[in-house]
Amino acid sequence: MTGPRPEPPVGPLSARPAREAGAGPVRVVAFGGGHGLAASLRALRRCRLDLDITAVVTVGDDGGSSGRLRTDRGSLPPGDLRQALVALAADSPETRRSADLFQHRFTPVPAGQPDDDPLVGHAVGNLVLCGLMELLGDPVTALDHAARMLNATGRVLPMSCDRVEIEADVRGLDPARPDELVTVRGQHEVAVTTGRVETVRLTPGAPAACPQALAAVTAADWLIFGPGSWYTSVIPHLLVPELAAAIVASPARRLVTLNLAAELETDGLSVAGHLAALHRYLPELAVDTVIADGKAVGDPEPVNRAAESLGARLLLAPVAVPDGGPRHDPVALAAALVPVLGSVR
Amino acid sequence: MTGPRPEPPVGPLSARPAREAGAGPVRVVAFGGGHGLAASLRALRRCRLDLDITAVVTVGDDGGSSGRLRTDRGSLPPGDLRQALVALAADSPETRRSADLFQHRFTPVPAGQPDDDPLVGHAVGNLVLCGLMELLGDPVTALDHAARMLNATGRVLPMSCDRVEIEADVRGLDPARPDELVTVRGQHEVAVTTGRVETVRLTPGAPAACPQALAAVTAADWLIFGPGSWYTSVIPHLLVPELAAAIVASPARRLVTLNLAAELETDGLSVAGHLAALHRYLPELAVDTVIADGKAVGDPEPVNRAAESLGARLLLAPVAVPDGGPRHDPVALAAALVPVLGSVR
Repeated sequence: MTGPRPEPPVGPLSARPAREAGAGPVRVVAFGGGHGLAASLRALRRCRLDLDITAVVTVGDDGGSSGRLRTDRGSLPPGDLRQALVALAADSPETRRSADLFQHRFTPVPAGQPDDDPLVGHAVGNLVLCGLMELLGDPVTALDHAARMLNATGRVLPMSCDRVEIEADVRGLDPARPDELVTVRGQHEVAVTTGRVETVRLTPGAPAACPQALAAVTAADWLIFGPGSWYTSVIPHLLVPELAAAIVASPARRLVTLNLAAELETDGLSVAGHLAALHRYLPELAVDTVIADGKAVGDPEPVNRAAESLGARLLLAPVAVPDGGPRHDPVALAAALVPVLGSVR
Repeated sequence: MTGPRPEPPVGPLSARPAREAGAGPVRVVAFGGGHGLAASLRALRRCRLDLDITAVVTVGDDGGSSGRLRTDRGSLPPGDLRQALVALAADSPETRRSADLFQHRFTPVPAGQPDDDPLVGHAVGNLVLCGLMELLGDPVTALDHAARMLNATGRVLPMSCDRVEIEADVRGLDPARPDELVTVRGQHEVAVTTGRVETVRLTPGAPAACPQALAAVTAADWLIFGPGSWYTSVIPHLLVPELAAAIVASPARRLVTLNLAAELETDGLSVAGHLAALHRYLPELAVDTVIADGKAVGDPEPVNRAAESLGARLLLAPVAVPDGGPRHDPVALAAALVPVLGSVR
């Protein structure tokens, strides 16, 4: 009655020794902004590993509901923080309902006065986060409470508690003057620019990093960058001086998850160019593993070379959703992450 | 080593047999609106009895944040529902923080644009309830979820899910024409009227009662009316035909907790007159117990007679807060309620 021998478990990708039993959870810090970070967190939550997850969120958003709360109430923009919290929310029906509430966006209602309804466009979770931050006077305490409201598997932190703007020098915004370099201000405007982003920066240039984010980076086993809007959600973390220094100094391994398609802001930037951009903004950044989807990469050689130049091995895996859309599938991404994160401390 | 004999527990006030052990919780339905109902619920939560608490809330509010949500979004006015939920919220630090969040009201912030901030005046809990009702499409499901968010000891229901307005015929609104009878429309306007309320009514006149509220009334051991704004928070329940019929038909005992001071809308109405008003709007209403504070009552004789005419005994107890303000003290009111509610089914 002996069947076929079971496949051995996927081995560690590294020559370093495997984590010892009882060594505690693998401490993972994931950097990003909106949908990309949420995809990363959804995958991490599905990994069958003992993970201690911290999300560090760009807080440069100035569009939509977040932008209005920033302008009207001086709030840290809550939208991307909300997306990360919801991605980490537990799976019980009750918690999912609270997560749905956080995501519920007020839209015009027939019974109301749609032209004059100031709530239209706000997500309830943004208002909850804004209220909590005002009530408690501290964004981190507020986010920790919101995480408990959603029974979240992990912690969500801002990269900085300061008011941060993102701006970029963009070439070719006006098709009639393709070589002209103009400054585009605000995360939203940069994200939707039709020109080519040459340089991105924060204003003010050196915001203070969130202390709890620094502590998480210092204590981490893995730092994960991407997926996400490269210039407006991923690279901004490298532009916070204290955070960049902590990333470089951390004993953690580093993983980069590449995007599945270019966005407006990265139009014209190759897959390999995404890795080169990380190097450009933080030359000391060494990377251990780069995960990409083979279909998005095409010819892997340039990407392989770019990964190697950062010290990383390229791991090609089918991580996109089955419908072919440019979105990461949480289960597929988790399957790619498990052997990497589970291999070593 | 025998000490003094312990005092016997406070005995039942009624000649009916005491509740049998194992008979399950005492099912209490408390009717009211804003602060008065919240005081009643806070006291009920502190009773050392096994209580199953349902709050049934007037939903005629058209002022402030609730009024705006009603106008802008066609929402059931959430303010009084929120107050009841918060009053039933559990005492853990985490739940208290969520309750504080529900109560947090957006005020102008220096960093913002105070003149143009449409959130100013809204309580976060009102926006949460409005969002939940929109998301789930049913006020009762929404309120049950909000109750779980606050780990509430009991259930909060609207008296009706219909859009209900309160209006009153008021005499003497214009001091120059003291006998003129004018109609004042809207709960807020009635509550702050400087005239004398002669008649209060709902428009439309016969809204459907909330089915779950009817079921709770039918299954109740005790129905509790007041304290609260008599014309705009207590009597409206008697004006919903199905609810009035269920109240009359219920085998439950009935308790009235009288107010500690007159309000604008009841200026000139004596304490005994409050009981007479209940009789006027629901002549079939029999009452078992009336609780009042001796200091608020003054000469008890007229109140005693008014209570007796409803079939009730008057229980005078010091139920006001110690500072002398016209607010019920939850612990003192609980002390008065325990022997009443614990006595009989």
